Amino acid sequence: MSGSPLTRVAALDALVDALRSLPGVGPKSAARMAFHLLQHDRDGAARLAEALRQALAGIRRCSLCNTYTEDALCATCADPRRDRRLLCVVESPADQSAVEQTLTYRGLYFVLMGRLSPLDGLGPKDIGIDQLVRRVQGGDVEEIILATNFTNEGEATAHVIAETLRPLDLRITRLARGVPSGAELEYVDLGTIARALVDRRGA
Amino acid sequence: MSGSPLTRVAALDALVDALRSLPGVGPKSAARMAFHLLQHDRDGAARLAEALRQALAGIRRCSLCNTYTEDALCATCADPRRDRRLLCVVESPADQSAVEQTLTYRGLYFVLMGRLSPLDGLGPKDIGIDQLVRRVQGGDVEEIILATNFTNEGEATAHVIAETLRPLDLRITRLARGVPSGAELEYVDLGTIARALVDRRGA
Ligand SMILES: [Zn+2]
Ligand SMILES: [Zn+2]
Repeated sequence: MSGSPLTRVAALDALVDALRSLPGVGPKSAARMAFHLLQHDRDGAARLAEALRQALAGIRRCSLCNTYTEDALCATCADPRRDRRLLCVVESPADQSAVEQTLTYRGLYFVLMGRLSPLDGLGPKDIGIDQLVRRVQGGDVEEIILATNFTNEGEATAHVIAETLRPLDLRITRLARGVPSGAELEYVDLGTIARALVDRRGA
Repeated sequence: MSGSPLTRVAALDALVDALRSLPGVGPKSAARMAFHLLQHDRDGAARLAEALRQALAGIRRCSLCNTYTEDALCATCADPRRDRRLLCVVESPADQSAVEQTLTYRGLYFVLMGRLSPLDGLGPKDIGIDQLVRRVQGGDVEEIILATNFTNEGEATAHVIAETLRPLDLRITRLARGVPSGAELEYVDLGTIARALVDRRGA
């Protein structure tokens, strides 16, 4: 248990401490959450405990794309209407979910276990790049769309994947950079505008 | 389940939804929390599920002061060194915890179930004022210290409790208002300074 006990009730201190596992939750908000659940939402607390239990027991990685699923294959990989020639590589199920919500992509995915991060000791194997190579060698993939994030680490990850897959006979693309939809140029950072100028396309 | 499903994994959607029971957690941060737990902290998720289960099973209200406890009497009420002539009335276990952490109070507490809030349909009975009256009539209490919050509702609650207990032979006090410790007057709101002037004391 970390930090000083807030109360003299062990089960309450343990709950406050466990809530701090959640990203972005410090000691004060963990205490507020614990008091809220006990005082106003015991049903919600019971539902959360059960949802955690079921998620841990039932959710695993898709054997083909590595995303979360309750079956051997995820719903996307098992869907015969998806275009099996396209493979979009993302850093996480959350990023996959973001791409999927655009409703513009009909291919398949490969979900990395994060991004390359030498400082955190995460190399190509740790994030599943070898698994990606096997996936590409075994399938009908003709184009790899690199949709890692546009951070330094995401860019480095895309670069390493591109170099790793280069010997295979594949088209390798990267999501376009540019000015975000709906943005006013006045408020867009200069690097983004500069890149959008360089990458300008016929209108 | 509220909102649109984020994923096509039922157990994951249920977890995201359950995390929204936590105060201050919207759909985006609930999804971020769920992905984080599954991807990086399955131990933390298991610990949280277990802490919730144990808190729900083990934590109840102290029969004397109404705060959270795992026993019939809380540690404070059961402590023979506490001064049983002083009873500090607070709105919640969180507020009790704040007073207790000052290490300056050696009396007992009575923890209301919140504050009077006519708009939310919370009257004196709902927040336990009748239980407080019985507590005072049954014990050795000589002074009631009203430590409800200095909000409109907290002030109204203090006022109603004072009027309700007035017929009993008790000293009834309220926490002092004034300039917060460490504050620079320049940055303190004028109402607080005005009240501190009126309540000024010998130095
Ligand atoms: Zn899959
Ligand atoms: Zn007690």
